[in-house]
Amino acid sequence: MADDIPDIVIGRLPIYLRALTYMAEETGKVTTSSQEMGQRLGISSAQIRKDLSHFGEFGKQGTGYHINYLIKQLRGILHLENEWPVVLIGAGFLGHALAHYVGFKHRGFQINWVFDNDPDIVGREMNELLVRDISQLGDLVREEEVKIAILAVPVSAAQKIADILVDAGIQSILSYAPINLTAPPEIQVRYSDPVIQLQRMTFYLET
Amino acid sequence: MADDIPDIVIGRLPIYLRALTYMAEETGKVTTSSQEMGQRLGISSAQIRKDLSHFGEFGKQGTGYHINYLIKQLRGILHLENEWPVVLIGAGFLGHALAHYVGFKHRGFQINWVFDNDPDIVGREMNELLVRDISQLGDLVREEEVKIAILAVPVSAAQKIADILVDAGIQSILSYAPINLTAPPEIQVRYSDPVIQLQRMTFYLET
Repeated sequence: MADDIPDIVIGRLPIYLRALTYMAEETGKVTTSSQEMGQRLGISSAQIRKDLSHFGEFGKQGTGYHINYLIKQLRGILHLENEWPVVLIGAGFLGHALAHYVGFKHRGFQINWVFDNDPDIVGREMNELLVRDISQLGDLVREEEVKIAILAVPVSAAQKIADILVDAGIQSILSYAPINLTAPPEIQVRYSDPVIQLQRMTFYLET
Repeated sequence: MADDIPDIVIGRLPIYLRALTYMAEETGKVTTSSQEMGQRLGISSAQIRKDLSHFGEFGKQGTGYHINYLIKQLRGILHLENEWPVVLIGAGFLGHALAHYVGFKHRGFQINWVFDNDPDIVGREMNELLVRDISQLGDLVREEEVKIAILAVPVSAAQKIADILVDAGIQSILSYAPINLTAPPEIQVRYSDPVIQLQRMTFYLET
């Protein structure tokens, strides 16, 4: 199935899931429509219906989508039934922010391990997680069969850490370092870089 | 022009710009090709050529793209000739990480002001920036005609702060709070949420 569906469609499913979860938890709504979702997200209702139709028939003409049912389906499609253990590399300000990020909760991920190379930080606790020595990273990823890593390290260290992770069997990397990482094609690498988002917006701003 | 070009194309230009800048600064290359860029970025060369063709003829058959020329053109298209002053709201761990983020440098943005509501933090300095009281936010945005804001505040505060910003004339918001903000359609709102990126990858992982 994964091969047939454009990645750009997959990229919108988490956005739908976030909006639906918000509706269920904050507004107490039971049903919604592609129109309502589209209005909230700035995506056309036709696009939303088309995206979801790749995976089945989730709504009914007239009554729309049952929010909790659609949430459950999307979580299944995105493989979020269980929590994925995540390894975080970097215990600086960003690492701290990530370790304390409440947005992971109930959304399929839990940071279970934190690594750093600073001897002043290694051995301390960060949000109840022991900060481990970077020299142990490869072994841990191998032993625990960790699939997902978050990189919150400086540019100068990012590629080296990525190599260690890939060598140890990691499959997905989310990197905060403003540099394009080199990795084998079967490894998924995504980036969180505020500048990429900001530059996308300045196109539309008058100078 | 902005109306004719799909936003998804605009969204790829910063990715191209980052890769080209890396080539110029780190590898010392003078020219590149859509093939080479594509290989580096995991985007087809045809897609890259098509994206760039919206804005003109930047390459030559046989010699490819002059990297520095293409960088300059892309910076112009994205309105990055001058640095945009940015207001940061939130001086917690994430705010600290953003205030110290080296990735802003020479890429079109500078955080000029930081706000928080915590009396223990207001009045202190963060990376040489005075942390200001949140009650002054609207006035400053209005007086300085700030166009871009970064929100690094908890979910509970995000919408309230967004309302203040919009009311004061902000045009673009990058929010780190895991919540969909409501804003008038003419305001650009983009989100940085690690979970959205992680969920996009777990679709492809075997469980």
